[in-house]
Amino acid sequence: MADQYAQSGEDNRPTEIPAIRWDEPPEGPVLVLLDQTRLPAEEVELVCTDAPALVEAIRSLAVRGAPLLGIAGAYGVALAAARGFDVDDAANALAGARPTAVNLAVGVRRAQAAYRAELVRSGDAGEAAVAALAAARALHREDAEASARMAERGLALLDELLPGGGHRILTHCNTGSLVSGGEGTAFAVALAAQRAGRLRRLWVDETRPLLQGARLTAYEAARTGMAYTLLTDNAAGSLFAAGEVDAVLIGADRIAADGSVANKVGSYPLAVLARYHHVPFIVVAPLTTVDPDTPDGAAIEVEQRPGHEVTEVAVPQAPATGAGGGVPVAPLGTQAYNPAFDVTPPELVTAIVTEEGTVSPVTAEALAELYGRARQVTIG
Amino acid sequence: MADQYAQSGEDNRPTEIPAIRWDEPPEGPVLVLLDQTRLPAEEVELVCTDAPALVEAIRSLAVRGAPLLGIAGAYGVALAAARGFDVDDAANALAGARPTAVNLAVGVRRAQAAYRAELVRSGDAGEAAVAALAAARALHREDAEASARMAERGLALLDELLPGGGHRILTHCNTGSLVSGGEGTAFAVALAAQRAGRLRRLWVDETRPLLQGARLTAYEAARTGMAYTLLTDNAAGSLFAAGEVDAVLIGADRIAADGSVANKVGSYPLAVLARYHHVPFIVVAPLTTVDPDTPDGAAIEVEQRPGHEVTEVAVPQAPATGAGGGVPVAPLGTQAYNPAFDVTPPELVTAIVTEEGTVSPVTAEALAELYGRARQVTIG
Repeated sequence: MADQYAQSGEDNRPTEIPAIRWDEPPEGPVLVLLDQTRLPAEEVELVCTDAPALVEAIRSLAVRGAPLLGIAGAYGVALAAARGFDVDDAANALAGARPTAVNLAVGVRRAQAAYRAELVRSGDAGEAAVAALAAARALHREDAEASARMAERGLALLDELLPGGGHRILTHCNTGSLVSGGEGTAFAVALAAQRAGRLRRLWVDETRPLLQGARLTAYEAARTGMAYTLLTDNAAGSLFAAGEVDAVLIGADRIAADGSVANKVGSYPLAVLARYHHVPFIVVAPLTTVDPDTPDGAAIEVEQRPGHEVTEVAVPQAPATGAGGGVPVAPLGTQAYNPAFDVTPPELVTAIVTEEGTVSPVTAEALAELYGRARQVTIG
Repeated sequence: MADQYAQSGEDNRPTEIPAIRWDEPPEGPVLVLLDQTRLPAEEVELVCTDAPALVEAIRSLAVRGAPLLGIAGAYGVALAAARGFDVDDAANALAGARPTAVNLAVGVRRAQAAYRAELVRSGDAGEAAVAALAAARALHREDAEASARMAERGLALLDELLPGGGHRILTHCNTGSLVSGGEGTAFAVALAAQRAGRLRRLWVDETRPLLQGARLTAYEAARTGMAYTLLTDNAAGSLFAAGEVDAVLIGADRIAADGSVANKVGSYPLAVLARYHHVPFIVVAPLTTVDPDTPDGAAIEVEQRPGHEVTEVAVPQAPATGAGGGVPVAPLGTQAYNPAFDVTPPELVTAIVTEEGTVSPVTAEALAELYGRARQVTIG
């Protein structure tokens, strides 16, 4: 089950509440999430005491973003273990909560494997639970480290592509500390540019239908003091035409073996615009996002989300009158096409920046080489 | 003053209420408008008994859309004349209600000129009022006829470009009978295809920030019984990539002499996507939209609208807490880039369809030739 810790609303400035944290109050261990569906209006923490509550939090997007979902999944397994629930049942439910999110399943399986290995070794479920938690914490720490390395590599690439500095970066969806154990992926690169004094402006796509750009990226940009400007997704074309975009930086939900990138819907149109305007289109993602078992873009299953996300506007303060719980903005009975992601083919991607290295130009061979090298390092 | 006729809410299906109509109840003549700010939730008619009420309706966007504003302005002059108000005062107030709307002033001046000419001729204010109304009705009828001719020419072009039929058309913003004395521009072509049994689907961009697609085009599609599907503007890329779009049809706010098309923001990214995917991009607009005094796209001044249209969501049913009167969706103090229009260069436009003819390929010479020919016909 889930409970809520509400923060005081005295001060409207965003604070530094982490997106996820493990806590051990006297009542037993809990996983505490910053409820991202309530941002930026309210900073509310959602307290999960079991895996079903976390599954619901994942489905409702209270917790979201590829790397963070992996960490959440791992902690979810640790939570089920610590609370004495069936760990395999919990792992299966968690891994299936969002089908396109490859990191979620990876995180879940890692904590589950640690649990099983320790259970086999010691025969002690308590020890196995400790091992699952240690695996989750290790993943959390590794992700923070990976963020830092992606930020460093991404900034080096930007400086190489755009030696003049004063970068004007366009980003889509939300890729900062709200989706990561660290400072994120694409957003972390913008943040590194900001710290180095080389960010002129972050252009923030609002990212319909769920407005992660307006609600979350603007929130992250505001709390880090960046110069940022929000725009509707369809206004990006005007910025490109006016020569106001030096680079596009986005994250990824899944990268196929051929370098096809599945990311939040709206990424692909930006890639086409970037190509038309000769602007670099850079994907920043941890190596765990690369799925060598998915051969190409056509093999990526794209999640179709409910139409009411488009036909209704979710406004917490408004009385819900639509079937989806929001305020209807389209006629009753309107059918909507609402893919969660789109797929950008490798020929439109200037570079893929990972914590282990940058691939550019993006080819299956270069990606396989990087992946193989990183695996060797990990195994070694 | 303005009054309201509310429609029964028994049945939620959109009905056939016209966007504008002249009525002569026993209490005296009135101009009845479908209040577009209330759509699609409610079909409310706004009854104007004088020019100030109509000015207010124009300012609040209860009545909107270039051709319809011209018709409304002409009827407004006729209303002032029929009710015995000062016609020149009314005309000036109406012409200035939205300074950028060229058609509004043109419609107002036409009815005013008819009033004056008849007053000079007969010396009878009653006769002059009849002449003003006749001028308004003529403009209304001409606009309906222009719609019909654009629809016919547009469908002929579609059938030529896509001989297989079963057209899947993507459209942006709102271009139907809500903005016209007839059935509109781009939407009228889709409607003609529907009647000919050759429309497979109308893809409706929601058109952020003001959601004219979701609120108005979906409403028009629903009441004409079309197969239509709503999508966020940024999901159009996925449709193109999946080969689900056979043609893009949009309207225009202004067309420069070189064929550059200013239209609702989001049109240009569709043009780039259409080019990348080898899909025809067709602009449907009356010849009055072509402005020979604007040499090219760079000469078109693009209206920048208030940022709160992006940082807040306008939901009539919700308590307004933002400075712009809506519900904030971005952190306090967020700056937004909010151009009303974008400009598509002629090389990305497959064809411009007008009531007098179709220009394809789009060149300054071809456009000038059509414009000159049409003027000759009008003068002759």
